[in-house]
Amino acid sequence: MKPVNVGLVGLGTVGSGIVNIFNKNAALLSKRAHCSLQLSHIGARRDNQLCDTSAYRVSRDIFDVVNDPDVDVLIEVIGGTTIAKDVITQALKAKKHVVTANKALIAEHGDALFKLANQNGVALKYEAAVAGSIPIIKTLTEGLSANEVSSVVGIINGTGNFILSEMTSKGREFADVLKEAQDLGYAEADPTFDVEGIDAAHKLQILASLAFGRWFNMGSVSTEGISKVAPKDIAYASELGYRIKHLGIARQTSEGCELRVHPTLINVSESIAKVDGALNAVYLNGDAAGGALSVGAGAGSLPTASAVMADVIDVAKSGSAATSAIDFEGEGHVLPLDQCRSAYYVRFVAIDRPGVMSEVAQAFSKCDISLEAILQKEKRQSSDDVVDVVLITNTVQEASFNQAISALKSNGAVVGDIQRIRVETQF
Amino acid sequence: MKPVNVGLVGLGTVGSGIVNIFNKNAALLSKRAHCSLQLSHIGARRDNQLCDTSAYRVSRDIFDVVNDPDVDVLIEVIGGTTIAKDVITQALKAKKHVVTANKALIAEHGDALFKLANQNGVALKYEAAVAGSIPIIKTLTEGLSANEVSSVVGIINGTGNFILSEMTSKGREFADVLKEAQDLGYAEADPTFDVEGIDAAHKLQILASLAFGRWFNMGSVSTEGISKVAPKDIAYASELGYRIKHLGIARQTSEGCELRVHPTLINVSESIAKVDGALNAVYLNGDAAGGALSVGAGAGSLPTASAVMADVIDVAKSGSAATSAIDFEGEGHVLPLDQCRSAYYVRFVAIDRPGVMSEVAQAFSKCDISLEAILQKEKRQSSDDVVDVVLITNTVQEASFNQAISALKSNGAVVGDIQRIRVETQF
Repeated sequence: MKPVNVGLVGLGTVGSGIVNIFNKNAALLSKRAHCSLQLSHIGARRDNQLCDTSAYRVSRDIFDVVNDPDVDVLIEVIGGTTIAKDVITQALKAKKHVVTANKALIAEHGDALFKLANQNGVALKYEAAVAGSIPIIKTLTEGLSANEVSSVVGIINGTGNFILSEMTSKGREFADVLKEAQDLGYAEADPTFDVEGIDAAHKLQILASLAFGRWFNMGSVSTEGISKVAPKDIAYASELGYRIKHLGIARQTSEGCELRVHPTLINVSESIAKVDGALNAVYLNGDAAGGALSVGAGAGSLPTASAVMADVIDVAKSGSAATSAIDFEGEGHVLPLDQCRSAYYVRFVAIDRPGVMSEVAQAFSKCDISLEAILQKEKRQSSDDVVDVVLITNTVQEASFNQAISALKSNGAVVGDIQRIRVETQF
Repeated sequence: MKPVNVGLVGLGTVGSGIVNIFNKNAALLSKRAHCSLQLSHIGARRDNQLCDTSAYRVSRDIFDVVNDPDVDVLIEVIGGTTIAKDVITQALKAKKHVVTANKALIAEHGDALFKLANQNGVALKYEAAVAGSIPIIKTLTEGLSANEVSSVVGIINGTGNFILSEMTSKGREFADVLKEAQDLGYAEADPTFDVEGIDAAHKLQILASLAFGRWFNMGSVSTEGISKVAPKDIAYASELGYRIKHLGIARQTSEGCELRVHPTLINVSESIAKVDGALNAVYLNGDAAGGALSVGAGAGSLPTASAVMADVIDVAKSGSAATSAIDFEGEGHVLPLDQCRSAYYVRFVAIDRPGVMSEVAQAFSKCDISLEAILQKEKRQSSDDVVDVVLITNTVQEASFNQAISALKSNGAVVGDIQRIRVETQF
């Protein structure tokens, strides 16, 4: 069988992992691909000391690789949505299969790029774009191919999970842990994408499109980050039997499709509540398979490279039969957030005077919301005239919940902001 | 594109699930298979009230389906290793792709059947044979295809896990829970395959062959069932911070390959320790991906049918390119059990006289075994002259451990049998 030549564009964290896999497992890769699989050309502006590229042809102009007629499969791991888009577009037009780890690009331009791949009879694959080493795209599109999928729920940002896990195990503040994560290289200098949930929203949008067979556009996902989660919330949640995780939730309900990323209280008895550190975890629910949970490394050089190379091997093995063959039935529509349903954790400070708790309870009961738990915390000092109040509601529509919160805010006994975090009970 | 005709042989639990998926998700199946996928012929000696077959051609002689020239893909879900073997052999020779859920047959005759499939240029697929709805064969062979896999560790028998979970949560006896499981239809009338670990050994043999690229023959797996686990062991394990699970373990060590199925103490902090009921769970460890855990329904009509249909869709999608293409590099060799390494939980009854505990400790230290924990339980009644002794060793070679146990047995203060259960710390 004719050898399959792989071009690699980008030599950062993931790119160096790919070179290291070629260096270590070369024979294995060819065996698994049922052909001679060769890294024939690398494009990178500079070297990376984390890998030895001496056995390969390296060009400083990445487009030399894109335009190399000998390259059959192009790997794009430069990231971003500008040059990467040009690279992928040119490669697809040149009828090269493309494998990418670029979630932002797929989320932003996936629909058009898949069409371009189909028009050119080649594959555009992106296993590494979501949940790192976990083969979640494969599990969703192939493992559960006979299923109507009703929900995808997961921890899909490793940096965010690392920060929340540290806050939980050590009682530390968000800003303090973020600083450490940046020093350790887990978090970017500009951490907005990770901590504000944008990265998770990109991934959720991709998962939802595959799960529900319709393409969800950028901005479909209601997104809330973890920067407002306080050590106090983690401690109270723990007292009530919950952990706080940053979840992406895509769910088909009878009213419509919910797509949201936010901090979430999860009962400690759920497996996903114990997925800590930089790990990712995704639950899929299919009408035949039932619930399935996958846990693994969500990022990192070799884990992400492992997912990239799995795609490359799939493409090499399929030969000319390799296609993305994703055919979305139009655009996905999302249920507005105020029609979504969820239980809520609420925390606020109240003046410690008779009748306050009954007024609080009334604000909720007037909106037909029951309280599953209510804690009035002891004063920290006897001189305090305010107390922390913590409660958990039953599952309600967001609109009713907002009404209750407005009523609460207008109560003179409630001091300052009201913290609200969703509670998830369905997996 | 030409329609793909599916023949189904067997209409028991899994067969009825397959018919139900065709009845419910027909359009979805064809969409995912990129062709018209049709259930064209069912072979079953009798009807099954759990599914409606009125839309399909049904033959009472299953070989009418096997010999049907219109059938492109044959599903075998009759089970067993006699007629099923004839069915699959004939179908492969007739150049039909075959999909099966039959772990015993693959474990016993897989090597020969894969060769036959390859000779005839067709695929023999068996995702449903291991871990029910979890796409573990796909994850291992495709998701981690760029990895050297060093270990596969899992709960791969749902009946056994159900029994241990009930014993744990309710303090019940093994025989009592087994009886209930039989009444509920979770366990077979002859439960030997499940509770003595034979079913798990079949599955582990298949997983190990795929993970390590060599074919392990029947009998390669050291197999121990759960029938000797006492409620007392579960209680003491819990006191020490462990759960008892029935694990299959395949591990490549520097000395050789370990293949074993046995009850195992697992620290409660491990995710797999909390996988309860009839669920299955499998950890894979790859040199690039790191550790990955998959959890899902290990058995049942629809979950197993989901895995069967994923294979059918893969085959239909690949068309003439579909092959098993499994090429094992000869036979796998297993490290003899006495050279395997593990920590151990030990429980026995000792006469309550001065010096006994130091003699116990000495029996282990003489064999270079340290004790991680030792509990001498209080007497249940003051008139008792014996006490339960429970201890956990460090990780040792089985041969040294056996020596220590022999020394212990010859100590006059040790009364009756010595219970020993392995403790697993690596996942």
